[in-house]
Amino acid sequence: MDEANAVRDRDHKFLTQAVEEAYKGVESGDGGPFGAVVVCNDEVVVSCHNMVHKHTDPTAHAEVTAVREACKKLNRIELADCEIYASCEPCPMCFGAIHLSRIKRLVYGAKAEAAIAIGFDDFIADALRGTGFYQKAQLEIKQADGKGALIAEQVVWVQTNENAEKQQYSIEIREINN
Amino acid sequence: MDEANAVRDRDHKFLTQAVEEAYKGVESGDGGPFGAVVVCNDEVVVSCHNMVHKHTDPTAHAEVTAVREACKKLNRIELADCEIYASCEPCPMCFGAIHLSRIKRLVYGAKAEAAIAIGFDDFIADALRGTGFYQKAQLEIKQADGKGALIAEQVVWVQTNENAEKQQYSIEIREINN
Repeated sequence: MDEANAVRDRDHKFLTQAVEEAYKGVESGDGGPFGAVVVCNDEVVVSCHNMVHKHTDPTAHAEVTAVREACKKLNRIELADCEIYASCEPCPMCFGAIHLSRIKRLVYGAKAEAAIAIGFDDFIADALRGTGFYQKAQLEIKQADGKGALIAEQVVWVQTNENAEKQQYSIEIREINN
Repeated sequence: MDEANAVRDRDHKFLTQAVEEAYKGVESGDGGPFGAVVVCNDEVVVSCHNMVHKHTDPTAHAEVTAVREACKKLNRIELADCEIYASCEPCPMCFGAIHLSRIKRLVYGAKAEAAIAIGFDDFIADALRGTGFYQKAQLEIKQADGKGALIAEQVVWVQTNENAEKQQYSIEIREINN
């Protein structure tokens, strides 16, 4: 197997785990259909999903949660020797957290548009396209290949179908509060 | 007193509290010299400072901490009826958290350049200048007037002088990890 294939298989393995976390989030009702895994020296440090509803915390996206938990576990505020695998393209808040933690590499599955299509805020797409801070960031960013992206996008759509009532409830709550 | 003066005095009062929080952060060594206050109906909901070192959490900036604590206290994930006062211009991560929580108004003191000048990452400036998601954000953003900006900038410089050794330590740690 050549090196490119080895990297692809490794990325696929960890991205699949991030997608499995996203499914756990959907099943538990903890939050949106998003998962993230932090890897250090080929070992999974933490595997987390969105906890926004569970923790009543709009900052508890999968990636922010994963950065927090990884720092707690490794007992340091910098993760320069770590990679993060995210089931979906990180929003600007999450991208900021990844940048601040000095994570060296980000691999993501679904494009932001998949989440926007089911009603998430379209600001998600702004971190990785057309913004100043993306261009300044010093980390390698890779979108998964076709297969990885496909399984990552499916979790978003599964959530839409299974949790249609929850979605509706969430929209109603937002309308009441705004 | 006309309405503009009343708004200015009110903003100055809450911004001063955010700056006092920043001083508490400096004195306690909990994190960087930054404070944030969430206000709802003219009442302070929470008053927080940067807890990055205290919590070993690179996401524990003052504004993210304030959003999390306010949501916990009010037991909801949306703060559409709240304002946030930040001693310094929020970084992209914090601006994302403010945006996601639907806070309706942001008032900040020091410009990002004040923090960048003492060694903080220059990506701080990207949230409020030249990025796509700023333009899409639906909140009112105001920089404090001359007096408010001045007291807010002073806290950054005080930290530089008093904590010069800590700063040096932090830079050394970063160099080791990168």
